[in-house]
Amino acid sequence: MNRFLSLLLLCVSIQPAYAQDRPYFHLPDIPGYKTLICDFHLHTVFSDGEVWPTVRVDEAWRDGLDAIAITDHLEYLPHKEDIRTDYNRSWKIAQKYALDKNVLVIPGTEITKSMPPGHFNALFIKDASTIVNDDYLLAIEAAASQGAFVMWNHPGWKAQQPDSTRWWNEHTLLYDKGWLHGIEVVNDGEYYPEALEWAIEKGLSIMGNSDEHSPFRGEFSALSHRPCTIVFATERSLGGIREALFNGRTAAFNGKNIIGDASILRALFLESVKLIQVENQVARYAFRNYSDLHFDLVLTDRVYRDWQKKLSLKPGYECFFSLPAETDIEDIELKVMNFISAPESSLKLNLSAVEKVEQ
Amino acid sequence: MNRFLSLLLLCVSIQPAYAQDRPYFHLPDIPGYKTLICDFHLHTVFSDGEVWPTVRVDEAWRDGLDAIAITDHLEYLPHKEDIRTDYNRSWKIAQKYALDKNVLVIPGTEITKSMPPGHFNALFIKDASTIVNDDYLLAIEAAASQGAFVMWNHPGWKAQQPDSTRWWNEHTLLYDKGWLHGIEVVNDGEYYPEALEWAIEKGLSIMGNSDEHSPFRGEFSALSHRPCTIVFATERSLGGIREALFNGRTAAFNGKNIIGDASILRALFLESVKLIQVENQVARYAFRNYSDLHFDLVLTDRVYRDWQKKLSLKPGYECFFSLPAETDIEDIELKVMNFISAPESSLKLNLSAVEKVEQ
Amino acid sequence: MNRFLSLLLLCVSIQPAYAQDRPYFHLPDIPGYKTLICDFHLHTVFSDGEVWPTVRVDEAWRDGLDAIAITDHLEYLPHKEDIRTDYNRSWKIAQKYALDKNVLVIPGTEITKSMPPGHFNALFIKDASTIVNDDYLLAIEAAASQGAFVMWNHPGWKAQQPDSTRWWNEHTLLYDKGWLHGIEVVNDGEYYPEALEWAIEKGLSIMGNSDEHSPFRGEFSALSHRPCTIVFATERSLGGIREALFNGRTAAFNGKNIIGDASILRALFLESVKLIQVENQVARYAFRNYSDLHFDLVLTDRVYRDWQKKLSLKPGYECFFSLPAETDIEDIELKVMNFISAPESSLKLNLSAVEKVEQ
Amino acid sequence: MNRFLSLLLLCVSIQPAYAQDRPYFHLPDIPGYKTLICDFHLHTVFSDGEVWPTVRVDEAWRDGLDAIAITDHLEYLPHKEDIRTDYNRSWKIAQKYALDKNVLVIPGTEITKSMPPGHFNALFIKDASTIVNDDYLLAIEAAASQGAFVMWNHPGWKAQQPDSTRWWNEHTLLYDKGWLHGIEVVNDGEYYPEALEWAIEKGLSIMGNSDEHSPFRGEFSALSHRPCTIVFATERSLGGIREALFNGRTAAFNGKNIIGDASILRALFLESVKLIQVENQVARYAFRNYSDLHFDLVLTDRVYRDWQKKLSLKPGYECFFSLPAETDIEDIELKVMNFISAPESSLKLNLSAVEKVEQ
Repeated sequence: MNRFLSLLLLCVSIQPAYAQDRPYFHLPDIPGYKTLICDFHLHTVFSDGEVWPTVRVDEAWRDGLDAIAITDHLEYLPHKEDIRTDYNRSWKIAQKYALDKNVLVIPGTEITKSMPPGHFNALFIKDASTIVNDDYLLAIEAAASQGAFVMWNHPGWKAQQPDSTRWWNEHTLLYDKGWLHGIEVVNDGEYYPEALEWAIEKGLSIMGNSDEHSPFRGEFSALSHRPCTIVFATERSLGGIREALFNGRTAAFNGKNIIGDASILRALFLESVKLIQVENQVARYAFRNYSDLHFDLVLTDRVYRDWQKKLSLKPGYECFFSLPAETDIEDIELKVMNFISAPESSLKLNLSAVEKVEQ
Repeated sequence: MNRFLSLLLLCVSIQPAYAQDRPYFHLPDIPGYKTLICDFHLHTVFSDGEVWPTVRVDEAWRDGLDAIAITDHLEYLPHKEDIRTDYNRSWKIAQKYALDKNVLVIPGTEITKSMPPGHFNALFIKDASTIVNDDYLLAIEAAASQGAFVMWNHPGWKAQQPDSTRWWNEHTLLYDKGWLHGIEVVNDGEYYPEALEWAIEKGLSIMGNSDEHSPFRGEFSALSHRPCTIVFATERSLGGIREALFNGRTAAFNGKNIIGDASILRALFLESVKLIQVENQVARYAFRNYSDLHFDLVLTDRVYRDWQKKLSLKPGYECFFSLPAETDIEDIELKVMNFISAPESSLKLNLSAVEKVEQ
Repeated sequence: MNRFLSLLLLCVSIQPAYAQDRPYFHLPDIPGYKTLICDFHLHTVFSDGEVWPTVRVDEAWRDGLDAIAITDHLEYLPHKEDIRTDYNRSWKIAQKYALDKNVLVIPGTEITKSMPPGHFNALFIKDASTIVNDDYLLAIEAAASQGAFVMWNHPGWKAQQPDSTRWWNEHTLLYDKGWLHGIEVVNDGEYYPEALEWAIEKGLSIMGNSDEHSPFRGEFSALSHRPCTIVFATERSLGGIREALFNGRTAAFNGKNIIGDASILRALFLESVKLIQVENQVARYAFRNYSDLHFDLVLTDRVYRDWQKKLSLKPGYECFFSLPAETDIEDIELKVMNFISAPESSLKLNLSAVEKVEQ
Repeated sequence: MNRFLSLLLLCVSIQPAYAQDRPYFHLPDIPGYKTLICDFHLHTVFSDGEVWPTVRVDEAWRDGLDAIAITDHLEYLPHKEDIRTDYNRSWKIAQKYALDKNVLVIPGTEITKSMPPGHFNALFIKDASTIVNDDYLLAIEAAASQGAFVMWNHPGWKAQQPDSTRWWNEHTLLYDKGWLHGIEVVNDGEYYPEALEWAIEKGLSIMGNSDEHSPFRGEFSALSHRPCTIVFATERSLGGIREALFNGRTAAFNGKNIIGDASILRALFLESVKLIQVENQVARYAFRNYSDLHFDLVLTDRVYRDWQKKLSLKPGYECFFSLPAETDIEDIELKVMNFISAPESSLKLNLSAVEKVEQ
């Protein structure tokens, strides 16, 4: 009844102030950059989604996101008998509604072609209607000419690449023209290692997004976080996010995994986890997790390799462990299994690199 | 990606069978009738709601509802610039989608007038478009002429009745013409005792509904159940529900409270809760709750009134208690505080009426 | 402060009645027998446990157990400097305390020898002190002469059988003398398939127990139930349990797995799960789980074997599924993966054997 | 089986390292002091408790406590037929076991007299056996002569003070002799406002303790924290805690309430909660809660007093609110309802005193 109420009763109810709360997702900033959580791939009733655009803003606020992009399909409009076609309408509704919600809304659209070359999101566009084009090349050129950040969506989607995940000539063409800037390594819970490989080789920005069509349901947790892109930006603004995207300072967040460049992952880990030496005890330690991330850790002795310890470090937890009595922590390798820096490769660092704090 | 996928790939993926699960809400049948859970007041983007009609069916399935009514406003269409006006479209989309979902969808609409006489839902209609009329009397006559069940919505809504909850001459007129059959005693978490009083006096069916405009969020529980109407029907069908509504076999479910006729509440309680006498113990008992309802119980000695025991009986729980040694359970009065049969009045019965079962 | 309070204030506070609640674990009876949940292996401070015997009764009550055995070690008494040795003291304290708790306490003890033959629980004993003997054979003979039910504990315990789980000559000797009646197939979350094999071959009763030394901590669930023995008894009494144990009507409950004789498992499943055919739909069904057990189900077509469906059916849930259109449910095999009737073997039945109920 | 195992198999199993985790309770340090969580009142089987002393250490570790005192009764030993009397035995067992657990164990005892003067805990004692005395004065003198910190336990306990909570001449005598240093304002979930009054008047240290006899069961939360004393110490050591106790730098933690001196509460609040101004919005703010405490907040305009806003700020949450447009935050009073500085009095501060942080 709420929305109707507000309309009818503006003069009756004077509420000078209102309150709302949400959990704050503890994700530390890294040196030099603010750490932002974003979802750059969302649908509404204006293409094949099931919600009004305002719902995406409310969900983003509840989930603690800093920014979202509304990216309705240009070419797939199953509700068009009921909903008048306006390619810019959904992000405009969301952007207006978001003004007092502290969520940034990025104008976007999804260019929706069969494979090759598949689907692409264009972000930071000015007018989606001029991008509509049966020819994928002309469509993406139109987006690029608006200064858009263009990313290849779900490259390993079984519906378009059922047998293997390939990079086609069409992608080389787009890439060579400078019209391809990012790639979804994660889409809706799926992770594509091939896409990560290409991102590293070609310097594409690593993206992770929900591609949600329905209302989000249920609660997210550190083990099953809403798919999103972590952005390391100089400031919390549309301009800050755009600059970070074009400069590749991103990581994909999928379930409990963070997928990105090793140096970024290392910085994020070192801000999240600290080491405690237990008083009066030799070689007894604890990790303390100051973040809302989950960490799967493996400790090994880099010299002798004769033992291995696996630790699961939950958000806000301390995890205690002992080392063999004569061990030098300089010789202990710490592997963060769910911080993925390349296919089959996780973040490694020296245990001694982790900052020590007092009990 | 799901909905698009199914369209694109019908010939690729042959999935002969699929699976989905949901919690089953344990609400026992009562002698002679099936107990059904229904929500007769729901909005979609076709009036001022935020979801596509299919979402209401998915939510109903997840929440274990037997039936819903889609009841978009006839007179309040804030999305009409974007959505073409078709007063029957939302329930038709929902009804088609529900075919393989095991949820019954009742055609409905909300006749939306200022007070008096306020808002009314017409259920089991044939064509909403012929009900549109600036004159409330002609609108409701049109609904009645289609055989609709007509109910007065949220009679105590502060937006329309800010100072007191009144019954107006307009309602008497509708009632006398036989065009008013039910009344919302519960709407969106609010309970209107005046409406319960009128329902009892005038033989109106007691209704409880969510009036939801947004996606449902979060989990319901026995203490905060989704607002709904419990219907006691001869069969689980549109016809069965219609007959039960016209014959007043309903109760409103709000939070943990069930509001309805004493004889219906009594039957529901006696099917839900059984009594155990603890072996080898004099005057030591337990209630066992076979339902997913919560019960706030008070035991008193009807003869001497010298003690009182309060018990909180959760779904699926046993609650143990002792009685003074010489007590005859014939003399113990059991009051079910959250089973409300009239304003300020809860269900009372003899402890001895509760069926005994073995440990 | 409670216990002291009751002592000091008996004359001040007259509380004629008190209340306590607990979740009721829904485990259906099977035709002819009551289904009881028991833990036959528990320790207290009187051997190497960490709790006073009354704690075991309170825990059993909270966990919904029908019966427990207190089985302190005869030969391992690390607290004997502080606690006077009395081999019958712990079960006597528990039994007295349990009188008004509706929990049955079985006198027991643990005969604690190195391997072979290992550790044995003697249940339904009369006097533990006469069982104490350095010679395992004389100890067990003493127990047997009291009419005790004797079981071999944790036969696969790595501390005693580090390399392989063997049956020794000593066990043959005990078995041949008729002094070995049961065997722990489950102990403290460990499952020993060899023990299950021997139980089947030799007609030993299948036992599952917690062997808990510490206070129980945390909540149990359908996926991680407290290790226990399910007993199918003619009545809920010490005598009833004793008869069922000697006649092998038991199953071990470990996490989500139930391990026992196929006919018992079949009966338990058929009382727990019912089948619903969805109205107006061909070949669309749901399982409804009336119990608090979890079921991992696999459906296959027994004729063509060309498809397989895996379902996870939670307690109190309905799980929907479709079959290929022309399927005869007579031809569908239903496998209950977590109902284990022999090593590497799960319960199988025809889908048509499951009772149909109305929506 | 664990404890026995470790004994039998020391030479077999070489485990150079082990791991254990626990939630870390985020309670910020305040300027100049470390914030420690302690429980100074715990029982074991050595008096009328139900657990072996080691259980108290394991529980303390799991609950994130820095220190505990074991305080078994001197005069009430209901298990003495089974357990040999040794007044120092329980804290010695606990202290030895705690060596590698990172929990500090304070030697203590409970001097247990009828009212007046009631029960007293003596902490940091050297030998409990020399404190045993039928004369309460001689007993407490003996404790004081060992340098003990002496506190009056549960002064409002209904068993000893059924009608009113009085301060007796005996307490004046003890206080005047300098043998009374602290008072339980909180015991086992009960809060005694009279005791808080006396603590403020007489400069007694404010104590809050569990007085637990049974195993702790279930999970604690920010709304129902384990009763404990928060100690603000110069260092995390027995000496550090002792100094803080004698100098009154303590607060009692009961459920969600923190009870203590206003200046300490203010420091704790200002370290826990920060203020965010929402970008591009006038008079729209959020509190961000960096601690694991819960806060019930009330905002009022100190000048006009014409509105009031209540906020509930959960651990790790952000809570958004708006102020009337022209408001100066200098004029806004912030009341922290659950930070209690005197009976009927909660912490008040200026909204402008809360540190601002960036989004």
